[in-house]
Amino acid sequence: MILNGLSRTIILGTSLIVLAASAALAQDRPVEQAVVDFTLANGLQVVVIPDHRAPIVTQMVWYKIGSADEPPGKSGIAHFFEHLMFKGTSKHAAGAFSAAVAAVGGNENAFTSYDYTAFYQTVPPSALGTMMDFEADRMRGLVLTDEVINSERDVVLEERRQRIDGSPQALLQEETQATLYQNHPYRIPVIGWEQEMEQLNRADAVDFYTLYYAPNNAILVVAGDVDPAAIRTMAEQTYGKVPRGPDLAPRNRPAEPEHNTSRTVTMRDARVSLPSYSVSWVVPSYRIAQPGEAEALNLLAEILGGGTRSRIYQDVVVKSGVAVDAGAGYDGSGYDPGTFALYGVPQGKHTLAEVEAAVAAEVAEILNDGVTADELAAAKARFVRSIIFARDDQSDMANIYGRELAVGLTIKDIAEWPDRIEAVTAQQVQDVAKRYLDPAIGVTSYLLPPADAVGASK
Amino acid sequence: MILNGLSRTIILGTSLIVLAASAALAQDRPVEQAVVDFTLANGLQVVVIPDHRAPIVTQMVWYKIGSADEPPGKSGIAHFFEHLMFKGTSKHAAGAFSAAVAAVGGNENAFTSYDYTAFYQTVPPSALGTMMDFEADRMRGLVLTDEVINSERDVVLEERRQRIDGSPQALLQEETQATLYQNHPYRIPVIGWEQEMEQLNRADAVDFYTLYYAPNNAILVVAGDVDPAAIRTMAEQTYGKVPRGPDLAPRNRPAEPEHNTSRTVTMRDARVSLPSYSVSWVVPSYRIAQPGEAEALNLLAEILGGGTRSRIYQDVVVKSGVAVDAGAGYDGSGYDPGTFALYGVPQGKHTLAEVEAAVAAEVAEILNDGVTADELAAAKARFVRSIIFARDDQSDMANIYGRELAVGLTIKDIAEWPDRIEAVTAQQVQDVAKRYLDPAIGVTSYLLPPADAVGASK
Repeated sequence: MILNGLSRTIILGTSLIVLAASAALAQDRPVEQAVVDFTLANGLQVVVIPDHRAPIVTQMVWYKIGSADEPPGKSGIAHFFEHLMFKGTSKHAAGAFSAAVAAVGGNENAFTSYDYTAFYQTVPPSALGTMMDFEADRMRGLVLTDEVINSERDVVLEERRQRIDGSPQALLQEETQATLYQNHPYRIPVIGWEQEMEQLNRADAVDFYTLYYAPNNAILVVAGDVDPAAIRTMAEQTYGKVPRGPDLAPRNRPAEPEHNTSRTVTMRDARVSLPSYSVSWVVPSYRIAQPGEAEALNLLAEILGGGTRSRIYQDVVVKSGVAVDAGAGYDGSGYDPGTFALYGVPQGKHTLAEVEAAVAAEVAEILNDGVTADELAAAKARFVRSIIFARDDQSDMANIYGRELAVGLTIKDIAEWPDRIEAVTAQQVQDVAKRYLDPAIGVTSYLLPPADAVGASK
Repeated sequence: MILNGLSRTIILGTSLIVLAASAALAQDRPVEQAVVDFTLANGLQVVVIPDHRAPIVTQMVWYKIGSADEPPGKSGIAHFFEHLMFKGTSKHAAGAFSAAVAAVGGNENAFTSYDYTAFYQTVPPSALGTMMDFEADRMRGLVLTDEVINSERDVVLEERRQRIDGSPQALLQEETQATLYQNHPYRIPVIGWEQEMEQLNRADAVDFYTLYYAPNNAILVVAGDVDPAAIRTMAEQTYGKVPRGPDLAPRNRPAEPEHNTSRTVTMRDARVSLPSYSVSWVVPSYRIAQPGEAEALNLLAEILGGGTRSRIYQDVVVKSGVAVDAGAGYDGSGYDPGTFALYGVPQGKHTLAEVEAAVAAEVAEILNDGVTADELAAAKARFVRSIIFARDDQSDMANIYGRELAVGLTIKDIAEWPDRIEAVTAQQVQDVAKRYLDPAIGVTSYLLPPADAVGASK
């Protein structure tokens, strides 16, 4: 499974809502008091989130390695390696771990993003020890033969064909990322460029595994009906026996240069019926933003186009009826820069140009007049309300902690986040809009029907 | 000095004409018979081009290292190193080499491109031994102190500010390259991204020097009033004493993925008075093309827009008067992919959109109807005529041989090139136009006056 660039510029809001959930949860019930974290002697960071509402537990292991850390020409290796982690080890045949999960009625999966690769199982607490045994075993014990590599490479290539090559949206998104980021590796698709995936070999996989799959580059998150002291003992008995890996250099990826041009990326395809657009900017993420900036970008996105109560939705969709959908989003959840995006889909006989103009007018209004105290307060409140969905989901909580720690934030950052959101002023919201939403450097992505199709006008 | 991306997409034709010159020269007078090449025991490839018309000689040393070979995050190191080569060695103080060139009334310079870095001096033959001594000495003998590195880094940063940051054309070109190439390092500017240039340090420079500046990664070209046998002796006594460097891996740079979108890059700037555009495609270079493809692309560019006799110039500039300038060009001189580009500048009250449409109509005509036998013959003849300029220029000849060998072509390729051009058929020209000039994947670059300027309409 890939968490890829799609969520960065078009389907925004998911990670936003999850992060908001964390904050509001922290407000309503001080979960951060209950969270226990410690580090094993071999460098494995452990976070335990007790949750006794149901006899179930989620184990996640997050490796601080994602596609943006890949060597040049080796795109796809991080995601490929996620697949390889389901192969056999010197102790267990391929499939034994998954069979053990299934045997207790659990579920499991894994995902790869620009900044991390994570593996999880949700099982009854009685099975957790077995899960830890298996997960610790594959941290260093995989047997990577040419046969394993070659057959699994075919699998990821087929995954690319189905998920990317078969989808105009995905192809457009891929080239939009490659245009938006002029230098940073977020420009390279998580799944990899086909011609590079085809060349991935056993030596690449072994090097990658040796360097990055180690306790000192991982975070174990256990959320559920467990006792932190017992988890500590179990972790020491399983993961604690895995030797530390090599020391890793800081994650200094190539940075973006100053942007000086506006750019467009256009895909026409017969499978597209409704035209759509999005315009994106590279902006700071939570990790690298100046204090308050990322929080202000979150609230700007919420006020401008974060849902059905937003300015864009109310004016452009509900009142004028120019668009069937339109909005804005901010993704600041990465290790390196984030993105801010606006998007829209025209209604009936309205054109994409009309939607773009209407959305741009909403931005201009904030640039000129700022936001009101009332709508700022309402936006903050919507963040709090949005947590209701997340608080009942144990795996969401494990996700939040794992991801934030994997991208360089701290448990303190998670705890303080609601206060930081509350502290944002209307002036700060207007300031980040002025600073970052500059049309002269926006990257606009168009998904269009074929030029000769009826109503294909832009 | 930098040979950068500018020539790849807007000012095309230079390398084309020089290459044409080489070919025609080979036809009129079989220069390739006189060219002598050999390799020293330490791996240095030597090419001698005797030319006794004047008592002068050009020495060039070409290193097969350019900006496209730089490690990620170290952009600018190849060009930076070109500068460092003018610093002191353990034998000679900084400036001694240049003083020796000046003392004999010679001239010298150096340049860096995506694929190579070259150094040359033009001097009286009597001074050649001294030049070889100096050039061989700095191949491995540089003294790279922190002081040298730090002061020269300021120099290249200032060069960037003047050449790139001070020029809307250059900034646009930089971001156009970064958009046109989605994965290949031709996307990164030769001079480097500022934020990476600022970080270049002594360790980077020493690693780069150790790895790439060595006889087995270099080509010595000597063109002029010299005897090949004497050159061999001199080369052995100077360069021959330089130890071989490390064996280098093949230059397998990250390759381009399939392109699926059309893209635009737009720069508006108060310093722009006349709007202009260019549209570019990534196409094969001579080194990687199928037989005949690169030659056909050269002739397509010539027929379509290679000069004042071309279709675009005649129709769009002379007859309709829509443009003050318009044309086409192909640059296939690189180690990796080449580019094909169309460009235009509107005349008077005509708009850029009119020019784009008029140029596109010329392309469409070739796609539909091909080219005539007469214009193909005339285009081939123009290639031959264009050599007149180059044949009298000794340093052009040295340039041609050095560059072609540095990008992986052979002396045989240079010799056979005119025959290969002559063999191109009208069908092949139409075929490459159909294969590569697909508007659905072109990258269009716009240089525009500010939006509120009079006549700033696109």
